[in-house]
Amino acid sequence: MASGFSQIEMLLAELGRSFYTRGWALGTSGNFSAVVSRDPLRISITSTGVDKGSLSPDQFVRVDANGAVTDGHGQPSAETALHLVLVRVRGAGAVLHTHSVWSTIISDEHAARHGLWIEGYEMLKGLEGVRSHIHREWLPIIENDQDMTRLSGVVETLLREHPQAHGFLLRGHGLYTWGENLAQARRHLEILEFLLEVVGRRR
Amino acid sequence: MASGFSQIEMLLAELGRSFYTRGWALGTSGNFSAVVSRDPLRISITSTGVDKGSLSPDQFVRVDANGAVTDGHGQPSAETALHLVLVRVRGAGAVLHTHSVWSTIISDEHAARHGLWIEGYEMLKGLEGVRSHIHREWLPIIENDQDMTRLSGVVETLLREHPQAHGFLLRGHGLYTWGENLAQARRHLEILEFLLEVVGRRR
Amino acid sequence: MASGFSQIEMLLAELGRSFYTRGWALGTSGNFSAVVSRDPLRISITSTGVDKGSLSPDQFVRVDANGAVTDGHGQPSAETALHLVLVRVRGAGAVLHTHSVWSTIISDEHAARHGLWIEGYEMLKGLEGVRSHIHREWLPIIENDQDMTRLSGVVETLLREHPQAHGFLLRGHGLYTWGENLAQARRHLEILEFLLEVVGRRR
Amino acid sequence: MASGFSQIEMLLAELGRSFYTRGWALGTSGNFSAVVSRDPLRISITSTGVDKGSLSPDQFVRVDANGAVTDGHGQPSAETALHLVLVRVRGAGAVLHTHSVWSTIISDEHAARHGLWIEGYEMLKGLEGVRSHIHREWLPIIENDQDMTRLSGVVETLLREHPQAHGFLLRGHGLYTWGENLAQARRHLEILEFLLEVVGRRR
Repeated sequence: MASGFSQIEMLLAELGRSFYTRGWALGTSGNFSAVVSRDPLRISITSTGVDKGSLSPDQFVRVDANGAVTDGHGQPSAETALHLVLVRVRGAGAVLHTHSVWSTIISDEHAARHGLWIEGYEMLKGLEGVRSHIHREWLPIIENDQDMTRLSGVVETLLREHPQAHGFLLRGHGLYTWGENLAQARRHLEILEFLLEVVGRRR
Repeated sequence: MASGFSQIEMLLAELGRSFYTRGWALGTSGNFSAVVSRDPLRISITSTGVDKGSLSPDQFVRVDANGAVTDGHGQPSAETALHLVLVRVRGAGAVLHTHSVWSTIISDEHAARHGLWIEGYEMLKGLEGVRSHIHREWLPIIENDQDMTRLSGVVETLLREHPQAHGFLLRGHGLYTWGENLAQARRHLEILEFLLEVVGRRR
Repeated sequence: MASGFSQIEMLLAELGRSFYTRGWALGTSGNFSAVVSRDPLRISITSTGVDKGSLSPDQFVRVDANGAVTDGHGQPSAETALHLVLVRVRGAGAVLHTHSVWSTIISDEHAARHGLWIEGYEMLKGLEGVRSHIHREWLPIIENDQDMTRLSGVVETLLREHPQAHGFLLRGHGLYTWGENLAQARRHLEILEFLLEVVGRRR
Repeated sequence: MASGFSQIEMLLAELGRSFYTRGWALGTSGNFSAVVSRDPLRISITSTGVDKGSLSPDQFVRVDANGAVTDGHGQPSAETALHLVLVRVRGAGAVLHTHSVWSTIISDEHAARHGLWIEGYEMLKGLEGVRSHIHREWLPIIENDQDMTRLSGVVETLLREHPQAHGFLLRGHGLYTWGENLAQARRHLEILEFLLEVVGRRR
């Protein structure tokens, strides 16, 4: 980033620290990205292995459509391929991935059904395009995998099978959500984490 | 608001941000109002669709007894009609509506009985007019509805049937409470959210 | 307080606000006191009906051994008589009374046994005089009562019957604890609230 | 500390206060250390009986390999011998010991099996050397004991029997974890506390 830290890295870093404070990105867990330009595609994403409690703008790198670093120092997050799938298939402008206690629990307990329905809650209206609490939201769950090439293929298939989904869970791992922009992605994250806590406390 | 931000919008915005911090108004959920004048009636209420974590005084509009905007920019909250019913029928000086995890859960689990009794807790004395923990508080629950005209009619009937109630729940949605002024409404909110957590953790 | 706010009221106010933040003294609940002088006896105690989230030094009054105000403006807390019993019978230098979710729940669920044993936890060593986790702490529970004269008689009897107790619960109401000074009372409060949460989450 | 507070005590004090804020070191519970030099061995460790909410750099002392104070004022933590075992046997550069609600509960409920397996969670990858969520982590549990000489012998045996362990629990007491340096020890603490909360909420 020749011209110093840009606005987008400052916003992402601030957001990441706030997620740490809420217990959604402890240690070095979680990763966050936003689209910087569409043509050519450039996204800014957290470097791998950085502590989210003290996340700073220079702990992001910019990568192209293949995940190759174009700006910044450090290795991009190991899960960059998943972010790129979301940007490509869903047109996401920002992708947020967190590890909360409730998403960890729910993603394991509902894994055999490959997802869970969430319905009847007013809070669902915080998800883009949802107009009524009567809406049924399917939150898919994918088996966790350390092979990111294979996993991004699974995610791509999932996104095509569930074109209405606003997020998905990785089993025993956490939540992926996204939005047209960072504000919308953050709103989706708050809404889905809220709903996962509701589901978790109702078990 | 020709004369710039007034005191009441500053107080409401500060309160809204504090509710966000407690997890009671995540994303754009929740709405808050206070009476500015009685004759002619003017209330200040949150604009629709604003993020409560960064709520600012200029994200409120003032409306008249019919919900028409008299001051400020933006669309008043979709639930303005409910606030106006509370101001008219109960003489409320302030109305607070939040979406917490516990109010979401309890409002759904007790929906078939149309409400729940809360009794035996000292904390009940924080509700205006309650002098002893022996008090029984009926917290009514209404089915959620996206039709605000119909819902405000249901709320008006409910308020007349339960003249002692200090709040009510919308199913799977959240809590409405109010007070003579903002301080009392806020106290009622804290007390009722506390009691809903107690009820929730005792299930 | 002719000479303005004193150090003790500043410390008590700061402590009270921190308890509010932890959810132990929401609304106007809770009351806190410290001994200012022993001969003649003067204690400083929260005025009745004040909001603990914005508690300030001038929201305390000083009272004598009979609970009569000697300094400050406002009505002393309705529970002043209980504080005076603790100062007199136990030689307490500070008394803290809070209403947490867990103390409310536990005090009701164990009421029939008039108390609960807490044992086997290292954290017990935070209570004055306790040297080992093998210690058994009896935390007595008293029925709640709005008649403070009667209730202070019950508390006095209880304190004489349980000379080892570091605190007691009022049913459906909350926790009383104390210490030689404010630091010790605060430590006892943190320890007992921690242990009540452990007991509550193990049910 | 002839030259005044050093960097390491400032970092330890700041960390300790943050653990207090999270409810992991209430009252005077918990103790924290870091290696200052290896040859001769010097570690800096919290003094005994200090309040972790206001922990300051001068509330640490430096001790040698026998636990004798070489710098600073005050008595080293009663659990200094355990810290020294970890430094000696594991080569730890920092040792953190906390008392959380979940570690207290889990350490008691799994005591009969002398530990618990934690597996299948992505968060495990935050532990040094763990590369996959498929990893099985054994978290040993030791009976609590007030005799620190005896207890440090038990800990030493345990560390030799479980060379892969990243931490252990003392029954009804809390968690010990460590790392090559303070940053790694803190990451292990966050990861293990997170996992204990997951285990606790799944019971």
